[in-house]
Amino acid sequence: MSINVVRTEGSWWVERPDGTAVEVATTATTTRELLGDVAAVEKAAESGGAGVAVGELALISPVTAPCRVAAQMVNYRSHARDSGFDPDTVQPTFFRKASGSITGPHGTIRKPAHVRLLDYEVELGLVMGAELPVGTRVTEPELSRYIAGLVVTNDVSARDVQLSKGQFYESKSYPTFTPVGPRLTLLGADEFTHLLNLRLRLSVNKVLRQDRTVADMIVRPAEALTALAGFQALSPGDLVLTGTPGGTALTAPPKLVEKIGALLPPEVKWKTFFARQARNPAYLRPGDVVEADIATPDGTLDLGTQRCTVA
Amino acid sequence: MSINVVRTEGSWWVERPDGTAVEVATTATTTRELLGDVAAVEKAAESGGAGVAVGELALISPVTAPCRVAAQMVNYRSHARDSGFDPDTVQPTFFRKASGSITGPHGTIRKPAHVRLLDYEVELGLVMGAELPVGTRVTEPELSRYIAGLVVTNDVSARDVQLSKGQFYESKSYPTFTPVGPRLTLLGADEFTHLLNLRLRLSVNKVLRQDRTVADMIVRPAEALTALAGFQALSPGDLVLTGTPGGTALTAPPKLVEKIGALLPPEVKWKTFFARQARNPAYLRPGDVVEADIATPDGTLDLGTQRCTVA
Repeated sequence: MSINVVRTEGSWWVERPDGTAVEVATTATTTRELLGDVAAVEKAAESGGAGVAVGELALISPVTAPCRVAAQMVNYRSHARDSGFDPDTVQPTFFRKASGSITGPHGTIRKPAHVRLLDYEVELGLVMGAELPVGTRVTEPELSRYIAGLVVTNDVSARDVQLSKGQFYESKSYPTFTPVGPRLTLLGADEFTHLLNLRLRLSVNKVLRQDRTVADMIVRPAEALTALAGFQALSPGDLVLTGTPGGTALTAPPKLVEKIGALLPPEVKWKTFFARQARNPAYLRPGDVVEADIATPDGTLDLGTQRCTVA
Repeated sequence: MSINVVRTEGSWWVERPDGTAVEVATTATTTRELLGDVAAVEKAAESGGAGVAVGELALISPVTAPCRVAAQMVNYRSHARDSGFDPDTVQPTFFRKASGSITGPHGTIRKPAHVRLLDYEVELGLVMGAELPVGTRVTEPELSRYIAGLVVTNDVSARDVQLSKGQFYESKSYPTFTPVGPRLTLLGADEFTHLLNLRLRLSVNKVLRQDRTVADMIVRPAEALTALAGFQALSPGDLVLTGTPGGTALTAPPKLVEKIGALLPPEVKWKTFFARQARNPAYLRPGDVVEADIATPDGTLDLGTQRCTVA
């Protein structure tokens, strides 16, 4: 049975199916420490005592910073098509996000003044539960040895910075660009079989923009961790973002337009592209409300719903 | 007066101009901790006692991992020209390297079996001495508030992985892909005026490949730290690589060839490019000896010489 952990300033809680939460008796201040005190979490989960309504708690990210945040580029067939990539030739490719970009599930996404094209990307986040040394090969049956739990994340992206700089690091690392939570859903060893049934949804002002299951993924978590461990060690509490499905504001230009663009000097190419994108109403604007949730249809796994406002 | 610190397993040393070293009486195990114990370093520097010959010490990286390693893309005019970028339109752009790639100054650069195009990049490394919160603006006179010292680094790069994946993170993060040291040169507040005089050199099997001064840099350290702090906080002991001068094995194809390449499907483009590069004898091969040094011509600042062998 999965256990849903939530966090408030100074405390960890187990959320029960009836919407109440029981505080975990632990001295852990980081996610890594909490994952080292599983007994306390299990004790809270088994507690029959009265809880407090989760709705009354001011939830913050259940993943604490600093930690490593590694993220996977183009990893859903639907997003590959949106972005002008051939899903059949995509190689597992990673970039880093600053963990200072982590924010809570019910907060504010702050658009830096110079950013014009602010985009969203709902993603399944893997929270590591064990050391993953360089060179580790992870098979699907071994996922539970390395992954402690799952979180909803939004890989917020400044598209104008991302595309003109080429390296994704800055455009996805501004403070508040990684809303995480509300729940850290700790999985039982037998529950990783539900991964492909998880459905990711993201809406802006109640209009659904992204809606796919993990079955649309190109490189699945075991293969992704193996690829990542080819060069990067991970530790408990680290976070891996596994890519976003189709439906982001950004869509790639048609192939022909892209090839003509490749012939232009970079300044002209980006100026033309950004002028066109600036007329695209799908990008986020101040006041927009972004909601994202991830769950299996039967509710066996339910990572909860995050709701952030753009400022 | 600058102080040259070197490190061996379990110990820190101050290297004196006569080639002897005095052990620092400190409990520091990380670079961050050592920078917090400046008094012990200064005491060793002032000690008149007998030292040991530095040549007899098995030096390891004076920057300890884990730490943040941020690196600057295309940041010397000579390298921009080599790489097909216009030096006048380069924006400060960063990527991350896994700090697990840090290795010592006299060790082995291990080429992963799948890597075909192994390249070198001598770079000036800035070792942070203070917290750099997001939003900090750093001016040149304030450099000494944030930077504790300088190191020689080699930003070893798997060009085939780098160019086909686009994101630089993996290609520059394999274990041993960041030789650091030998010295951590701690600068006095008045010594940052020597920065532009530092000369970076790298040779392969005694043939000089790279040879430029920091004056060839496009975005200088104060502006680079300001740009980095636009999205990423840094802490004492973190490492910032500031780009490499011209002379790497990789050179960009002529403009016309590049534009024709842009019209090809990516697989064909890269296959053609890599086939041409595979005939380029400048890439590193097992047994090659890579030496790199950084110093001012008058020796006021001398970060030492690293010598690594490719395996």
